[in-house]
Amino acid sequence: MSARHPVQGVAAFLFALVLALPCVGLAAIPDSVPDETLKALNLDRNATPRSLYDALTTRYRSEADGAGKGNFASFWEPIPMSKYLAPSLFYEAPTTLDMVVKAEDCVACHTAITGGHVLAWQKSLHSDLKALRELPDTDTRSYKKAHLAEVESNLQSLGILQAGQQLDQVGCIDCHMNVGAKEGHHIKDLRLPDAAACGTCHLRQYAERESERDTLTWPQDQWPAGRPSHALDYKANVETATWAAMQQREVAEGCTMCHTNQNKCDNCHGRHEFSPVEARKPEACSTCHNGVDHNEFEAFMYSRHGVNYQTRGDTWDWHAPLSQALEKGQTAPTCAFCHMEYKGQFTHNVVRKVRWGFLPTKNIADNLGHEWFTDRREAWKGTCSTCHSPSFADAYLDMMDKGIISGMEVVEEMRPVVQALFDERLLVGQKTNRPALPEPEKDEAGGFFSLLMSNGNNPTMVDRVFAEMWEQHVAKHYKGLAHVNPGGFTYTEGWSQLMKGKTFILEENTRLREKAAMEKRLEALEGKTPAKAALHGDPQADTVLQRVTSVVGGGGLAALGGLLALSGMGLLWRRRKPEAPKHH
Amino acid sequence: MSARHPVQGVAAFLFALVLALPCVGLAAIPDSVPDETLKALNLDRNATPRSLYDALTTRYRSEADGAGKGNFASFWEPIPMSKYLAPSLFYEAPTTLDMVVKAEDCVACHTAITGGHVLAWQKSLHSDLKALRELPDTDTRSYKKAHLAEVESNLQSLGILQAGQQLDQVGCIDCHMNVGAKEGHHIKDLRLPDAAACGTCHLRQYAERESERDTLTWPQDQWPAGRPSHALDYKANVETATWAAMQQREVAEGCTMCHTNQNKCDNCHGRHEFSPVEARKPEACSTCHNGVDHNEFEAFMYSRHGVNYQTRGDTWDWHAPLSQALEKGQTAPTCAFCHMEYKGQFTHNVVRKVRWGFLPTKNIADNLGHEWFTDRREAWKGTCSTCHSPSFADAYLDMMDKGIISGMEVVEEMRPVVQALFDERLLVGQKTNRPALPEPEKDEAGGFFSLLMSNGNNPTMVDRVFAEMWEQHVAKHYKGLAHVNPGGFTYTEGWSQLMKGKTFILEENTRLREKAAMEKRLEALEGKTPAKAALHGDPQADTVLQRVTSVVGGGGLAALGGLLALSGMGLLWRRRKPEAPKHH
Amino acid sequence: MSARHPVQGVAAFLFALVLALPCVGLAAIPDSVPDETLKALNLDRNATPRSLYDALTTRYRSEADGAGKGNFASFWEPIPMSKYLAPSLFYEAPTTLDMVVKAEDCVACHTAITGGHVLAWQKSLHSDLKALRELPDTDTRSYKKAHLAEVESNLQSLGILQAGQQLDQVGCIDCHMNVGAKEGHHIKDLRLPDAAACGTCHLRQYAERESERDTLTWPQDQWPAGRPSHALDYKANVETATWAAMQQREVAEGCTMCHTNQNKCDNCHGRHEFSPVEARKPEACSTCHNGVDHNEFEAFMYSRHGVNYQTRGDTWDWHAPLSQALEKGQTAPTCAFCHMEYKGQFTHNVVRKVRWGFLPTKNIADNLGHEWFTDRREAWKGTCSTCHSPSFADAYLDMMDKGIISGMEVVEEMRPVVQALFDERLLVGQKTNRPALPEPEKDEAGGFFSLLMSNGNNPTMVDRVFAEMWEQHVAKHYKGLAHVNPGGFTYTEGWSQLMKGKTFILEENTRLREKAAMEKRLEALEGKTPAKAALHGDPQADTVLQRVTSVVGGGGLAALGGLLALSGMGLLWRRRKPEAPKHH
Repeated sequence: MSARHPVQGVAAFLFALVLALPCVGLAAIPDSVPDETLKALNLDRNATPRSLYDALTTRYRSEADGAGKGNFASFWEPIPMSKYLAPSLFYEAPTTLDMVVKAEDCVACHTAITGGHVLAWQKSLHSDLKALRELPDTDTRSYKKAHLAEVESNLQSLGILQAGQQLDQVGCIDCHMNVGAKEGHHIKDLRLPDAAACGTCHLRQYAERESERDTLTWPQDQWPAGRPSHALDYKANVETATWAAMQQREVAEGCTMCHTNQNKCDNCHGRHEFSPVEARKPEACSTCHNGVDHNEFEAFMYSRHGVNYQTRGDTWDWHAPLSQALEKGQTAPTCAFCHMEYKGQFTHNVVRKVRWGFLPTKNIADNLGHEWFTDRREAWKGTCSTCHSPSFADAYLDMMDKGIISGMEVVEEMRPVVQALFDERLLVGQKTNRPALPEPEKDEAGGFFSLLMSNGNNPTMVDRVFAEMWEQHVAKHYKGLAHVNPGGFTYTEGWSQLMKGKTFILEENTRLREKAAMEKRLEALEGKTPAKAALHGDPQADTVLQRVTSVVGGGGLAALGGLLALSGMGLLWRRRKPEAPKHH
Repeated sequence: MSARHPVQGVAAFLFALVLALPCVGLAAIPDSVPDETLKALNLDRNATPRSLYDALTTRYRSEADGAGKGNFASFWEPIPMSKYLAPSLFYEAPTTLDMVVKAEDCVACHTAITGGHVLAWQKSLHSDLKALRELPDTDTRSYKKAHLAEVESNLQSLGILQAGQQLDQVGCIDCHMNVGAKEGHHIKDLRLPDAAACGTCHLRQYAERESERDTLTWPQDQWPAGRPSHALDYKANVETATWAAMQQREVAEGCTMCHTNQNKCDNCHGRHEFSPVEARKPEACSTCHNGVDHNEFEAFMYSRHGVNYQTRGDTWDWHAPLSQALEKGQTAPTCAFCHMEYKGQFTHNVVRKVRWGFLPTKNIADNLGHEWFTDRREAWKGTCSTCHSPSFADAYLDMMDKGIISGMEVVEEMRPVVQALFDERLLVGQKTNRPALPEPEKDEAGGFFSLLMSNGNNPTMVDRVFAEMWEQHVAKHYKGLAHVNPGGFTYTEGWSQLMKGKTFILEENTRLREKAAMEKRLEALEGKTPAKAALHGDPQADTVLQRVTSVVGGGGLAALGGLLALSGMGLLWRRRKPEAPKHH
Repeated sequence: MSARHPVQGVAAFLFALVLALPCVGLAAIPDSVPDETLKALNLDRNATPRSLYDALTTRYRSEADGAGKGNFASFWEPIPMSKYLAPSLFYEAPTTLDMVVKAEDCVACHTAITGGHVLAWQKSLHSDLKALRELPDTDTRSYKKAHLAEVESNLQSLGILQAGQQLDQVGCIDCHMNVGAKEGHHIKDLRLPDAAACGTCHLRQYAERESERDTLTWPQDQWPAGRPSHALDYKANVETATWAAMQQREVAEGCTMCHTNQNKCDNCHGRHEFSPVEARKPEACSTCHNGVDHNEFEAFMYSRHGVNYQTRGDTWDWHAPLSQALEKGQTAPTCAFCHMEYKGQFTHNVVRKVRWGFLPTKNIADNLGHEWFTDRREAWKGTCSTCHSPSFADAYLDMMDKGIISGMEVVEEMRPVVQALFDERLLVGQKTNRPALPEPEKDEAGGFFSLLMSNGNNPTMVDRVFAEMWEQHVAKHYKGLAHVNPGGFTYTEGWSQLMKGKTFILEENTRLREKAAMEKRLEALEGKTPAKAALHGDPQADTVLQRVTSVVGGGGLAALGGLLALSGMGLLWRRRKPEAPKHH
């Protein structure tokens, strides 16, 4: 492809090759791709890049292995935005340009139509690989010359480049049609790149990311294999019953907006400048890793680590790869530094040290002594020991684990209290006004749905508060401890909020039981047996009127004036609206 | 005024003039001032700067057009701080310096008294316009030479500069007494600059900002004309009944601190360096556009847009005007970039694309198909298409609108539930302990006052939670969607909080009605007719004792021990305290 | 110590001496150390550095003066992490290296073990004082040459350096064993530096910080002498009953993580680069000064001050000492700028202008006219007048004080309401299910423990909400006002949250009293006298069963099904678990 300065190009290539050989294993699968993945893909370490790419991509696109709409596919339909979030599933090109375009046409037209993206690309190394080849070795970014040689080796193995052929640019057509294409049809060939598209060139990073499926194999089935991870996060999204059941698809699509790492690479590597500097900075993780149930970003930023980043980060050399970052001036860890590291190596598999997963559960706490967990704890100790003494690392990890367990125990202490109220049907309105949930969601005490749905008295505040405890507060408690943010697990988030949730639930427990006792006393005074239908009938089988009447019970229909208000709330979940006509 | 290097100055001026002519329309009102404003002011496009300035300023200072203390003027008094927030209304100079001072005296004295402001001004271009004139055209800031020529043209039209005369400095006296003044009296002539003072020089920006009054004319009267906008934000503040009714004037003045864009320009253009770089960065908007009911800043910062700003913004050329920002390296939008843009032009009217206003209401949702709204949606689509494809923009705007409507519908579903409880007087304490509100505020179910006032059982938690729903959660839901922050409209803010509010209100609805039914059963058992006075009497006409006694009803005065506590809470709103003696 | 370029070194030293003499008072205690401290230590202004150091350190290490485990020492034990948070109390070196090491060995080994810390140190001036001596006087950092001369003078007085001897490096051994040591034993001599270790060299800063004990002497005993301050923050922590009583020591240690300024200096001066730039930036304060009860950082960042920092701070010269910061381009205050300043001087005593302390209380509000407070207000006015006019400063401080008082009054209005419910035993479950607290904590209405503990119905939601009001919302209200964040004291934090708390408490007051009245009516109908044991018995003396039965009362044991759930919650506080076996 490169017509410019071929001699210089070849010289640079040879030089890059020399650089690359020892560290990336040009002729074999790099050792940053773990054995587990080779085994899963039935490859040996000497397999060609093409073999690796094909094996990875076959699995990546297989429904049996986690691609597609998932188990609840029949319950939901995409919205127009979905095509940008799961392009492999839903993307269709606009039908207005029914023509073949040449590679050089892209920029010419899109400068006028989507000029911002073109300008961003023009800032990128993709747009001028010659500039990369010409970097002096004193330039921090010169390590990328080896990366480029590796990319070219991959493309040669895939038959996209000839032996010895170089890239001089990665243009629109390479990503949006096919790598190396000279032209393509603007409807039939247009695509939005998925991870396999990026992986055509960036095969090592693709393989490392895909290896998350293979290394996160929970020994006591705490989570499904390979989860929670970036590699299977879209599957995790679409197989969440609440998500699939939600009527408001545009709101549900908000969840999807983060759960797209499985589908594509631009959550971390924002389009179209693709500067690794962006992905190295903690803010890159913040769009998804913030908020009520995964506030890693806030926790980090308030930690002394984050403070050092914020006050001194402007003196660090962000062009350095993570493996050289400390030598180049970095004085505190970042998200990428700790989570991409495993036993001294930095890769795109960010789950090799995962122990507590997304939520601290009893099944994890009870098994922390298992080798799978202790090995990972040792790996963390190694990470901390990049700066801190091993005894410091041990002391902190010990504090962290025990602190997390304390939080988890609060949740487990409240679980039977909430369950008993549910089982005895003592929750507010439970006997009269707790409609079934839309499919495929199922009712349960304090279920996840409580955070995103509400109809009649389903959920009640007890459900809601318990859901916040097990899904949010304990998560923040853990994240605060794990990211060394003291307020994150003491008085602001975490523990204090768990205590508030517990206080609320124990108070409701007393109130609801006292109310039930008072009700019995009233009935005794009225000389009546309990209104059995109201107390034990199936609320989903009764009409609204019957149920409300029955709860009013012996006291007559004094509350009848309230019936309209109650029935007006719609005990049946609204049906999904048909797609409204589009704004032209 | 400039005595320095006059020849060079003239040359620079002529050059600037040439630059300025095509783009700013030196001899006519710039086309960035919309036709609507010319019509409203009865001017034609060829009017002189003086005509434009006079017409704008007459309206700006007219009470009939929104200046002054507003409709509730009789209910509130300013506090000492008010003179800095609404200087045109309340500023009076300190009486200690009863003397005429010369322009050159200002810096001499104030270096000792308020040195920080003097130093900031010395960093500004205001302090050295010669430095500006000498900028080479390769300097990104050289576009300001045309701005300066425009300013001088305005001042010539106003008779402040002679024909051909140049400015060499904008000093203290120009803004704090009169533009071009050589001396002034330190009591009689001292002022804090309002927007008209800044507009004397920066007429185009003043006119653009004032044009917000003319372009935001809601077709179905969703909001008063010209609102919500920066141009009328002080009026909006002082005509809010809750604000005017608040007893704690120092707390109320906190609202005013943001609602001062109508009065002055320094909310965005911080004193005294006045670097446009400050106003261009998203943090400039954050003091006001954050928090429970307008969290635009947080939403932006967590979006991929904000992430790109935070990780790569240090490589952008912030001296570039918005129209050149992308060419100069900006790779993501900022607040200013999207909100000052309209059909490709960047102006100080930031409301030309407003569709959802401050809050998403049914009256907006129901009329989105009206041309006024569809034109604005098209304009937004153009804005997004600066970078994204038009089909992407369409898909996202479609998702945004429908998502917002889903949130709005939750509010509308709860409105009649809350209203029915209010109308049936079933809210906690409603029959016995819901005092009237201080004037000019009026009681209503879940009114805005619920967020800032509390006395007796007014508001109740149902009022409060509903007020949070319609004024805060749905606003954050909308802002999260509009600024592409997934957690902002799913699980952290917005939808999930709306669901919590709904869960709470539906639970209270059941509880309060069940309690009323139980009360009836008790009364039936006691063989008594309901205590009519307590249930239907006017709580404002009764004494505290009568009311509390009546609710205790047939059960005797068993709760009498609690009366002191109840009555101690002060059912009458506290009177405003007289101004406490000042700390010397 | 310096073997390199001795002649040049001496020359630099003499030059530094000349610079230093007038400003730091080399031969006497610097005037930045207040008279109050000299008096407390029984020193005169001409005392030697050694005398000052010895007097400070004797007091610093004396249990009678606030060192040690505090009054509740018998109630808690340290965890492994504690040795890093209170090293003087708990640090013990790892026992693996039973050997004498030489100064030059440290870096050699620790490059491999804790390389990140070594690299950070290599970036520091500590690692190369010669570089500092060679700074040209045009370099902003050249003021540090005088600091170095002062340090050397201190060390000469202490006998660590010979007369005329210079430092050329501060290495690992100086801080982690003894200043000036050539070798040491890796178990017996190893230490983590406390403030006295840092103060060996940085005596002036140590003395300034320690002077917080002497200047914060509340005239009406609003707080214990010297508190709240950095100098006694560990004592404040360990003498908080809730902290000492908490079962979950790892969670409690989160509180300790911030309360360690008494113990060491690295909360502000992060290891091991020790750049003062870090400590000067507002983020340095953020790890501790954020969140629900001291959100100073958030308040500042949203203020116009913080906005100017965030948008323009990249143009400021952060190497400048605070006294020169404005001249060097700083255009807005930072945490350090306002809080380290006192009457024009910048020191490490950050509490000399403290008036409202940590929480706005009635005892402060009622005494603001006392000279102690008015002097400090005048000092604040001087601080603000660095930039603003004195009349502006007055107006704002007036607004701030009155606004704070309004918030405080809401708390004081609710206090008797909550207390009455508590005294009448009307809180939910109070008669049946309010267990005593673990020692040394004591039960009270809405006590601080409510934020961090929960068992049975202790606390109730009324307790919790009131604790949030007096400990969190009113604090944020005050901090929002003090740091000029409008949303911080109006609609987002502060006032609006106080109103919500008040609304909740007044609603519960009505509900609980109405419920008690209804209970009486039921009892009257049942023809029974009140179940006196249940109403007035000592809940700690009864069994769970007796109490629950008694509250169910005349209505029979209908609620018996709920007993298991109630009793399952554990009315007795869990005993502390013995230390779990360590991982691996």
